[in-house]
Amino acid sequence: MPAAGGVVLVLSRLNRILEISPEDMVAVVEPGVITGHLKKEVEKFGLYYPPDPGSADYCTIGGNVATGAGGAVAVQYGVTRDFVLGLTVVLPTGEIIDCGSRTMKGVVGYDLTHLFLGSEGTLGVIVRIILRLVPRPASRETLAAGFTSLEAAVRAVGRILQAGLTPAALEFLDRPTLECIREMLPFSLPRQVEALLLLAVDGHPRDVASRAGRMARLCREMGARPVVRARGAAAAERLWAVRRIISPATFKVKPHKIAEDVAVPLSAIPRLVAGVQEISRRRGLPILCFGHAGDGNIHVNVMYDRGVEQEHREAQAAVEDLLALTRKLQGTLSGEHGVGLAKAPYIGMELSEPAIALQKRLKQAFDPLNIMNPGKLFPPERS
Amino acid sequence: MPAAGGVVLVLSRLNRILEISPEDMVAVVEPGVITGHLKKEVEKFGLYYPPDPGSADYCTIGGNVATGAGGAVAVQYGVTRDFVLGLTVVLPTGEIIDCGSRTMKGVVGYDLTHLFLGSEGTLGVIVRIILRLVPRPASRETLAAGFTSLEAAVRAVGRILQAGLTPAALEFLDRPTLECIREMLPFSLPRQVEALLLLAVDGHPRDVASRAGRMARLCREMGARPVVRARGAAAAERLWAVRRIISPATFKVKPHKIAEDVAVPLSAIPRLVAGVQEISRRRGLPILCFGHAGDGNIHVNVMYDRGVEQEHREAQAAVEDLLALTRKLQGTLSGEHGVGLAKAPYIGMELSEPAIALQKRLKQAFDPLNIMNPGKLFPPERS
Repeated sequence: MPAAGGVVLVLSRLNRILEISPEDMVAVVEPGVITGHLKKEVEKFGLYYPPDPGSADYCTIGGNVATGAGGAVAVQYGVTRDFVLGLTVVLPTGEIIDCGSRTMKGVVGYDLTHLFLGSEGTLGVIVRIILRLVPRPASRETLAAGFTSLEAAVRAVGRILQAGLTPAALEFLDRPTLECIREMLPFSLPRQVEALLLLAVDGHPRDVASRAGRMARLCREMGARPVVRARGAAAAERLWAVRRIISPATFKVKPHKIAEDVAVPLSAIPRLVAGVQEISRRRGLPILCFGHAGDGNIHVNVMYDRGVEQEHREAQAAVEDLLALTRKLQGTLSGEHGVGLAKAPYIGMELSEPAIALQKRLKQAFDPLNIMNPGKLFPPERS
Repeated sequence: MPAAGGVVLVLSRLNRILEISPEDMVAVVEPGVITGHLKKEVEKFGLYYPPDPGSADYCTIGGNVATGAGGAVAVQYGVTRDFVLGLTVVLPTGEIIDCGSRTMKGVVGYDLTHLFLGSEGTLGVIVRIILRLVPRPASRETLAAGFTSLEAAVRAVGRILQAGLTPAALEFLDRPTLECIREMLPFSLPRQVEALLLLAVDGHPRDVASRAGRMARLCREMGARPVVRARGAAAAERLWAVRRIISPATFKVKPHKIAEDVAVPLSAIPRLVAGVQEISRRRGLPILCFGHAGDGNIHVNVMYDRGVEQEHREAQAAVEDLLALTRKLQGTLSGEHGVGLAKAPYIGMELSEPAIALQKRLKQAFDPLNIMNPGKLFPPERS
């Protein structure tokens, strides 16, 4: 029997891409593979692994599977969940099992694959992952559209989605976020812009040009100025880079943040953002909203200074306000980050007592000795 | 407390569409809603509920969810699983819980929604379902392409998928199946045709025409004759109707059938179909292959006469041959039909002992008294 350290060492070495099959359109990987590395490797075969968490350059596929990671292109392609076909898992009871398969469809037995997905390391150790791949889109175009009101921006989101224009990504930045990145934009933004949409369109060049053109017209009809179309990979990359620098840029405002990632029904986005502005005023703290407008998953960043006791307290209170507002809007506490330790105290706001009790029985069925990531996911027991 | 009959009555009445929301792009339905009815109702709002099991005209959404139903358009849109956002479930222990949510993303707690999906009524009674909808595609075009060899047809499938031409459906019919429906085809089929592909393309009219044209050219380059393009809804419907009459038409061959629905990795389709022809010869029974070539889910129909003892025995043996072959090809015993009673004795061919033991512990955690659909899904205990 190896010592615990030995086991850790072995797991950290599970970082090989075992297979990329263009014929079956699957990849088989170990959990330690860096997501961005896999994306680049499958491109060599003309394939595409769409999930793109913001941390793609340094997060691992295993982490993505364990947390059910999302990302910007979920609006067209889906999230990690939608690309996992099968898993090999070491159970807390010591056995190794395969679940799912190398096929696109499969309904034999309970869907353990998707149960392990997002289980945050509490049900087993994932040691092998079969991923579905899609053809690499031949071209991508990126657009930016500035709106003088948040409501107009969100109405445009609805119109674009309902028109079936199928954006690959449909991101949104509110005014406080824009203030952080204004000088990094590759175009000048009039002062009256209250919200920016960033859109990407994937597909065959002619179809991409046609859909991007229709999106641009639709945004202009709804009052957007400017509407900037980035043609060509380099221009698109410059525009899209703006989205990626948001997270570090927010620290201009305050040295610390609590990064929430609530998701709400699409029609509730304006009420969510308006409610957040209200919370920001009430708590006296800047709160930045940006993220995946196309799927209702908004990153809400409460900015504060940990050294100032009052700000720390208000930041915590702002988070509780936000989660309560989200539930009132029929939203979920987390669209893609998960529960972990930080949100465990709050899951009772979303899951009922019987649902939590059932989840605990399920955990017990997998892990009777509670050795897998204990203390995560469930609210601490009152003693 | 109502008597058991009372409960059944209440469930059979749960057949209302509670809500269709174009803004949130969701529908909320009770389980007894007929799938085809929901599809028609959401179309009135310019929306589309893609899953299309062959039985859409008389199956229910609740049944689709409980079995994890598939269908022909899975190759582009996915299966029932991919459209269920949330459920309300009566647990065997008497509590009612909500799981999932009305949002496109969500990762709070274990994914019970997808665990109930495909659980075949063994974990709880689903009483309310939140479904994701997509915009109704503006147009659809259908193609048929006849190939003189099975291998060429399957090579064309691979080429079409890998080229990113995104067919909505990509169906395949082998020669024995073609013989059953030859005179119902809206075009004449040369005798040397060994396999027919039926393709559908969804989207905006110009894009549909362009992709359908490229698919037709690709099929011709690979030797297909004839390649028939059905332009317009009526012509497409005539062509697609052929796919729907296959199942009843098979009974021309023999009065009874065992309908399997194995799924294999895409590259294994030719080996599967060649292997089936071998089994057909060995067992002396006609076996028809047709179905979802685009996702590797092939309907294999072993035709026989129940009244002839010998045929009955050989049909059972042919099924066992087929399932063994499927597993050798890294396939799954069922792509979309599920396990139920018929395949319960065979799940040990796919799931290992520890995996079955884990699934039984999971069942026990949900249903300690084993009152929900007992005897389904698991192999009968040896006594």
